[in-house]
Amino acid sequence: MNRFVKPDPGDNIRRRDVLRVLSAALDAVDPAEAVRRCVTRDGDLLRIGDRTYDLQRCQRVFVVGGGKAGAVMAGAVESILGDRLTAGTVVVKAGYTAPTAHVTIHEAGHPVPDAAGVAGTRVMVNLLHGAGEHDLVLCLISGGGSALMTLPVDGVTLDDMQALTGALLRCGAPIQAINTVRKHLSQVKGGQLARLAYPAAVVSLILSDVVGSPLDVIASGPTVPDSTTFADAQAVLTQYGIWDDVPVPVREHLAVGAAGRIPDTPKTGDPALAHVHNVIVGDNARAALAAVEQAQASGFSTLLLSTYIEGEAREVAQVLAALAKEIAFEGRPLPKPACLILGGETTVTIRGSGKGGRNQELTLAAALAIQDLDDVMIASLATDGTDGPTGAAGGLVDGMTVARGAEHGLSARAALVNNDAYPYLDAVGDLLVTGPTNTNVNDLMAVFVF
Amino acid sequence: MNRFVKPDPGDNIRRRDVLRVLSAALDAVDPAEAVRRCVTRDGDLLRIGDRTYDLQRCQRVFVVGGGKAGAVMAGAVESILGDRLTAGTVVVKAGYTAPTAHVTIHEAGHPVPDAAGVAGTRVMVNLLHGAGEHDLVLCLISGGGSALMTLPVDGVTLDDMQALTGALLRCGAPIQAINTVRKHLSQVKGGQLARLAYPAAVVSLILSDVVGSPLDVIASGPTVPDSTTFADAQAVLTQYGIWDDVPVPVREHLAVGAAGRIPDTPKTGDPALAHVHNVIVGDNARAALAAVEQAQASGFSTLLLSTYIEGEAREVAQVLAALAKEIAFEGRPLPKPACLILGGETTVTIRGSGKGGRNQELTLAAALAIQDLDDVMIASLATDGTDGPTGAAGGLVDGMTVARGAEHGLSARAALVNNDAYPYLDAVGDLLVTGPTNTNVNDLMAVFVF
Repeated sequence: MNRFVKPDPGDNIRRRDVLRVLSAALDAVDPAEAVRRCVTRDGDLLRIGDRTYDLQRCQRVFVVGGGKAGAVMAGAVESILGDRLTAGTVVVKAGYTAPTAHVTIHEAGHPVPDAAGVAGTRVMVNLLHGAGEHDLVLCLISGGGSALMTLPVDGVTLDDMQALTGALLRCGAPIQAINTVRKHLSQVKGGQLARLAYPAAVVSLILSDVVGSPLDVIASGPTVPDSTTFADAQAVLTQYGIWDDVPVPVREHLAVGAAGRIPDTPKTGDPALAHVHNVIVGDNARAALAAVEQAQASGFSTLLLSTYIEGEAREVAQVLAALAKEIAFEGRPLPKPACLILGGETTVTIRGSGKGGRNQELTLAAALAIQDLDDVMIASLATDGTDGPTGAAGGLVDGMTVARGAEHGLSARAALVNNDAYPYLDAVGDLLVTGPTNTNVNDLMAVFVF
Repeated sequence: MNRFVKPDPGDNIRRRDVLRVLSAALDAVDPAEAVRRCVTRDGDLLRIGDRTYDLQRCQRVFVVGGGKAGAVMAGAVESILGDRLTAGTVVVKAGYTAPTAHVTIHEAGHPVPDAAGVAGTRVMVNLLHGAGEHDLVLCLISGGGSALMTLPVDGVTLDDMQALTGALLRCGAPIQAINTVRKHLSQVKGGQLARLAYPAAVVSLILSDVVGSPLDVIASGPTVPDSTTFADAQAVLTQYGIWDDVPVPVREHLAVGAAGRIPDTPKTGDPALAHVHNVIVGDNARAALAAVEQAQASGFSTLLLSTYIEGEAREVAQVLAALAKEIAFEGRPLPKPACLILGGETTVTIRGSGKGGRNQELTLAAALAIQDLDDVMIASLATDGTDGPTGAAGGLVDGMTVARGAEHGLSARAALVNNDAYPYLDAVGDLLVTGPTNTNVNDLMAVFVF
C-alpha cells in the first residue's frame, strides 16, 4: 500500500518503487500492527515475544503506559484480550487519542509536561496499587512517554521540575545528566513503575523512538533497571554549579535520597524487576528490515548499512551521495539496480531563517551532491510523518532536483544555506507527505541507484 | 610490509591487522610500483594498459610531465625502457626529486607556481617541438602537476596569473570556474600538451589525486579534451564582476581567443587527442581495493563502500561510527570480524586554534562516537603521509581512546572543539605516521569490528 499523499508518482516507475519500499517500512512499525505481531492469543494462552502467559492463571489484566502511540497500542491490546482486560489507563499526547473500550485515555501536554499528565499518571499509579501477584500488567511505552508519564515525588511540583530542567539546559548539561536528576525526582521513571506494579507480572511493549533502542532511555525506562543513584543526581547539580539555583524541594529530596533514607531507583537484580519482561515491538531496525525486504522483492540488490545514523543532516547527505556514486560509477558494493537502507536521526544546526526539517535538509543537500546523476534517488523520512515544524515527512530527490529548481528560478544552494528546504522541495515536487502515522521509530534514509 | 613508523603495534594483534591492511593499500599506489604494474616490456613490445607499442617502430621515446610523484615515476619508466629512452623533462615539487639517468628533473614551487616551474615547463615544451609521428611521448601526471607544469601564454606573466587567481578566489568563484579561466591562459593545460606533442603518439600515465579521478581535472588535464571555451572563460570574469580587476594581458588574450583569432583548447574529436592514450596507473580505488584484498586475506568480511567520500571530517566520523555500531551490535551488513573500506577526502572547518589534519580530526571525532565499544577500531589515513600541517598521516582509534586521554588528563571533546587532534592522538599513542610516501591518492578510511 502507498502510504504517501505526496509525491503522486504518476507514471514514474522509479518513484513508485521508492514509495513502495518506504511504505513497507511504515507498515511494519504501525503501532497496532506492531503490537499484534508481538502479542498473539490462542484461547487462554497469551504469547508475548518468547514467553507465554496463561490467562487462566491471571486474576486480572491491567493496561498502563504512556506515549504518542499509547491509544493505538491500547486499542490493539483490547482487540486481542477482549473482556479478559480488567482496566487500564494510558497517557497520550493531546490529540493523539483513539477509540478504546476498557482503557481510559488521558490526553496531556507534550513536550512540556502539564497538570493533565500528572493527573493521568496518578490515576495509573493508583490502578497499580491494587495489583497483586496473580495479576498481569501490560505497560505500553512509546515516544513522548517520559514527558507524558510525569509524576514528581511528593513535595516537588511541576513548576519545580520546569525550573530544574531550565537550569540544567542552560548550564549545558548533556541529556544523560539531565535524565539522571529527573529519574530521582519521579515516582515512575527509572524502573519505578515496575516497583509500583510489584508483585504483579509486568510486560512492557515498547515502541522505540531512540537510536539504538537503549531501554533505560526510552520514556526514561519505567520498567528497566536504573544504573544511576541519588548521589549521582546530586553530583550533576554540583558539577554544573547549579545546586544553589534549583528549587529547595528538589535539593531536599535528593539530599534525603543520598542519605539513604528513601529507596533509590531499582537496580539490576531488584526483585520488582525480576517480574518484568521488556519487549520491543517496533523500532528503527524493524522498519529498516521491512524496507530491505520490499526492496529485494522489487528486484534491488539491497544492504541495510546502519540503524545508528547520527550527525549533521547536510553532511550525512554527502556520505549518502558518495555511496550512491560508488554504485553508479563502479557497481560497488552492489550491482545496479541497488538500494541502501539506513536509519537513525540526524540533526540540523540552524544558521538560516527558512522552513524545513532534518530529513528535508538532508535530501536537499543530497540533491546538490548527486546533481546530474540520472540514475540516483535519495530519500529521507521521519517515520512519525512530521519532519521539523512542517507538514511534510521528508524528501525524495534525484539527479534532476537541482535543475527542476532552476527552472522555477530557485537555487538549491541558497535554500540550503538558509535552512529553507521545505519551500524548495515543495516547488519541485520532491516533498514526502504522509500525514500523521501514529508511530515514531526515528528516520529512515534510502539510496536508490537504478 | 608494515609501512608505519607509528604506532608500534607491539603485541597488539588488532593493530597489526589494521596496519597490514593500510600498508597493502599504500604499497598498491607506490608510484614506481604503479608504473611497473601498468607498463611492461617484452623485448621491443611495450605493453601499457590494454595497448601494445612496438619500440622497433618508435623512432624516439620522450618522457615529459609533472607532479609530486614525477621523479619516482620517471625512475620507474627508465628502469623499464633503459636506453630506448631518448630524453625527458619532468617538473617536480622542490625536494621531491629522485635519481634518474636520462630524464632531467626540474624542481619548482608548489602550491604557488614559480619561475622555476615556468623554466622547466618551457624546456619540456621545447623537447616536444621536435616530436614527430614516429615518436612516442610518455607523459607522467601526478598531484600538483597543475601548479608545477605552468607556462602562461605569451604576454601573460606569472604575476598576472597570481593577480588573476587572487581575484577569482576573493570573488568566491568555484574551482571549476577558476580552472576554466586558467586553462585558457596556459600553453599546456586543457589538452594543449597533447597538441604540442602532435603528431607523436602520447601515453599519459596518471596517478590521480582527485576524488573520482576526473581526467580533465587531474593536473588540469594536459592530455584530455577540454569542454570549456574562451567565451566561457570571459563569462566567468564578467559573471563574478571582476573583468575590470584582472590584468590587461589576461583580458586581451581571452578577448582575442573569444573572437576566434587563436585556436581554443582541443575538444573531443581533435586530431591531436586521437593519438593520446590516458592510463590511470594509481588512484584511490586501487588503494582501497588492495586494502580490501588484504583485509579479506586476514580473515575479515569486507566491503568497499565508497571511494567518493567528501564532507566535514567530524561528521563523516559520525557515519563511520554508526556503521561500526551496526556491525558490533547487529552483525549487519557483515558478520564479525568485519572491515569496511572507504576512500575520498574530507574537509575541516577550522574554528579552533589547535594542530591537526582532516584524518586526525576524523578519528578523534570517531573515538568519541565509539567510546567504550571494545571491538571497534577506526582509521583514517592521508596516503601522501602528510595530514594537514603535521608530520602525521592520520589516526587509528578504538573504544578506549577517550579513556586513554582521560588517564593523561586530556579531554577528547575539548581537543575536537579546538581542532587540536594532533597532540591528543600523539599523547595516547593513536597517531599514524609513515613519513613521506611519494604518492597521493587522497585518503583512506577503515572501520574494523573484531
